[in-house]
Amino acid sequence: MIQPNLPDSTLPRVVIVGGGFAGINLAKSLRKVPVQVVLLDRNNYHLFQPLLYQVATAGLEPDSIAFPLRGIFKKQKNFHFRMAEVKGVDAANNILETNIGDISYNYLVLATGSNTNFFGNKMIEEHAIGMKSLIEAVQIRNYVLKQFEESLLITDETAIRSKLNFVMVGAGPTGVELAGAFAELRKYILPKDYPELPLHLMDVYLIEAGPRVLAGMSEVTSQKTKASLEHIGVKVLTNVAVKDYDGLTLTLNNGETLQTQSLIWAAGVKGMSVPGLPEEAMLPNGRVHVNDLNLVKGTQNIYAVGDIAMMVNDERFSKGYPMVAQVAMQQGKQLGKNIAHQLRGQAQKPFKYTDLGSMATIGRNRAVTEFAGIRLSGYIAWLAWMVVHLLNLLGFRNKLVVMINWIYRYFTYDRGTRIIIKRGAANIVKLRQSIYQTDPQVPDVHHVR
Amino acid sequence: MIQPNLPDSTLPRVVIVGGGFAGINLAKSLRKVPVQVVLLDRNNYHLFQPLLYQVATAGLEPDSIAFPLRGIFKKQKNFHFRMAEVKGVDAANNILETNIGDISYNYLVLATGSNTNFFGNKMIEEHAIGMKSLIEAVQIRNYVLKQFEESLLITDETAIRSKLNFVMVGAGPTGVELAGAFAELRKYILPKDYPELPLHLMDVYLIEAGPRVLAGMSEVTSQKTKASLEHIGVKVLTNVAVKDYDGLTLTLNNGETLQTQSLIWAAGVKGMSVPGLPEEAMLPNGRVHVNDLNLVKGTQNIYAVGDIAMMVNDERFSKGYPMVAQVAMQQGKQLGKNIAHQLRGQAQKPFKYTDLGSMATIGRNRAVTEFAGIRLSGYIAWLAWMVVHLLNLLGFRNKLVVMINWIYRYFTYDRGTRIIIKRGAANIVKLRQSIYQTDPQVPDVHHVR
Repeated sequence: MIQPNLPDSTLPRVVIVGGGFAGINLAKSLRKVPVQVVLLDRNNYHLFQPLLYQVATAGLEPDSIAFPLRGIFKKQKNFHFRMAEVKGVDAANNILETNIGDISYNYLVLATGSNTNFFGNKMIEEHAIGMKSLIEAVQIRNYVLKQFEESLLITDETAIRSKLNFVMVGAGPTGVELAGAFAELRKYILPKDYPELPLHLMDVYLIEAGPRVLAGMSEVTSQKTKASLEHIGVKVLTNVAVKDYDGLTLTLNNGETLQTQSLIWAAGVKGMSVPGLPEEAMLPNGRVHVNDLNLVKGTQNIYAVGDIAMMVNDERFSKGYPMVAQVAMQQGKQLGKNIAHQLRGQAQKPFKYTDLGSMATIGRNRAVTEFAGIRLSGYIAWLAWMVVHLLNLLGFRNKLVVMINWIYRYFTYDRGTRIIIKRGAANIVKLRQSIYQTDPQVPDVHHVR
Repeated sequence: MIQPNLPDSTLPRVVIVGGGFAGINLAKSLRKVPVQVVLLDRNNYHLFQPLLYQVATAGLEPDSIAFPLRGIFKKQKNFHFRMAEVKGVDAANNILETNIGDISYNYLVLATGSNTNFFGNKMIEEHAIGMKSLIEAVQIRNYVLKQFEESLLITDETAIRSKLNFVMVGAGPTGVELAGAFAELRKYILPKDYPELPLHLMDVYLIEAGPRVLAGMSEVTSQKTKASLEHIGVKVLTNVAVKDYDGLTLTLNNGETLQTQSLIWAAGVKGMSVPGLPEEAMLPNGRVHVNDLNLVKGTQNIYAVGDIAMMVNDERFSKGYPMVAQVAMQQGKQLGKNIAHQLRGQAQKPFKYTDLGSMATIGRNRAVTEFAGIRLSGYIAWLAWMVVHLLNLLGFRNKLVVMINWIYRYFTYDRGTRIIIKRGAANIVKLRQSIYQTDPQVPDVHHVR
């Protein structure tokens, strides 16, 4: 019999679903509040998504950008973690249904984040590669390195091009950073590792349906970014959308085609909603309507924070706040304070977004940042980018390991983590015996009594 | 059409199968020899097996103990790497058959290493966990951490014991080091990460069929090791063999039973031979008879080095040399010299093993080493163990990252890498499209034209 086995408590229970930026900031801000905090996540770690692209391009180990959730909260007495997947909400009875059993709540907070949005194109969804989770990033790394190995085994130029072309769709920060990282792989790593590889057959594309890259930043920054990308060899196509992709041939809406076996889709995200919420709250893009206290429309004690929350209370963001880490962190913290206020019978404060600016790195010594009207680009922006990301990365060990990897890469023009971790055939599947029935592809070999 | 596409050369070709200690030392020693060196491995990295147990117990990232083979040899002009699996040898025609096509050779060197030996017990083979590859170590880490998570979800004491008991079979260095690492997890990590876990229900067992642990070292060292293990809470059972295991209940040959879902088998290895060798050369344990020049019995130009080679030319090792890194490294180097001698028409030198001693770590501040009659134990031995392992680890980045992890763990009593990397359900399988048909479990979604 599997059950959450949460300790009994007379305190109100706050159940938080998701250990991303919103979830952990909320849990932290409830540290001294008289509540029982229960955090659920399908993984046992917090993932620092902004550096995911470096895992995908063999720059960092997966472990350096993930931090065990239990480790973050080991000193917080009112905190309880369970690895679980949420099935739905029974709002009428204040019960959250999960794969480890039902959990009752006084406050429920959805901080489930977002997932890749293919906008309904099934062909693209089937053949393109998303990059939102750690395992996806690791698999991309394995896949990309395999393309290089396999390119050596064929002689047909078209087939080689198809293996060596890498196409990023969507020129937000993720697409820009990925394209830059691929261009650097080609420039610095591949000539040394694969002297036999015909690198003139390799192209890195960045495709954007809108008129410019980094649309969230200023026009000037867009232009600088595009020029930088082109300088390091990325083919930037704007005002062009992907029409179709069958795993080998990519068709653009201008009729042109590209041969590629690697299409990485960074063109959109959608909220990861939970079944059982009031219909009036649900939006087609998976996000959930909340008021300026992050309360889900039509509910009394269900909140949503971060990417999944659709809040419109700021004229600068008439379509809701951007789905970025800054918003998630601030909403998490604010909700924590508001729950404390509520328990003390004090007035709650509406969420107010402090835009700390945005940044993207393009490659070695190249980045762009915008903050409070100040625009930086080039070396200074690149240093700023690194400092901000290091400071925000959780855990001293992770900070140190990431810094060493960056210093190492800077001076050696090398990447240490370009290994392909293959799943072996034997003796592995049985390790997947688990109480959690989370992976429909692999049957459970054992049944736990 | 897939083919190895190796560059034409008038030089004799040396094909080396396996990038372990023997293979890379051989390839390095051929650096200035007028031959074309072709190294094949199923993985694109060299694995530092002595630290594999630390990956399995969440002490190190997998990437820190693996080093890309192409990176090792990027400055060696006569070196060519192909990621491939060997199918067999056509000795009559000097052709090696692989999954990327046939490769002709002038010299063939098998450095394929060893794999877990279950000695024919199918039940144990099916349910126990081997630990010879990087993916196995990663899967063990995931599995072990999952046991802790899942233990929180049940209340039945027998079921909890079964999840929290970890049994190592075989008290060689691997078994001893694993048992020590599990004991440390229980002592330092779990009380902080899982304050709710009933740790009194957790036991770590080390089971050895022979009369003592670390049978390869002296009687005194065995006793010290056993005492140290018991001091940190490992239950050491000697003169006891595992009779059967069904995934839940372990039966010993003295009739006793243990409840455990985690049996790690470190009780033996077997050579990983290649089909097509002369029958007179093949041994039942997978090793291959070689003479004192590492030439495979009954062949003219096929060699075997390292774990797979069974050479008897030293009365201290009447059953062949131990299957350890030292022998592999020395045989690889010596064979490189002998191939050079042969090409110059000079006399070859028989292999002579220089025993550099052996060592095992038991835990924090505890290790044992033996070298040239000098026995060390405790803190000094532990420092020596770390220095020797760091020096032998390939690559500056890996050395640095491992050192930082060790220093971090020493001072914080923490482990940074205790994350569970789950395979997601969607969008992953398709990434496995590959020229290499190496994984029979996952069908290829795409077919490469």
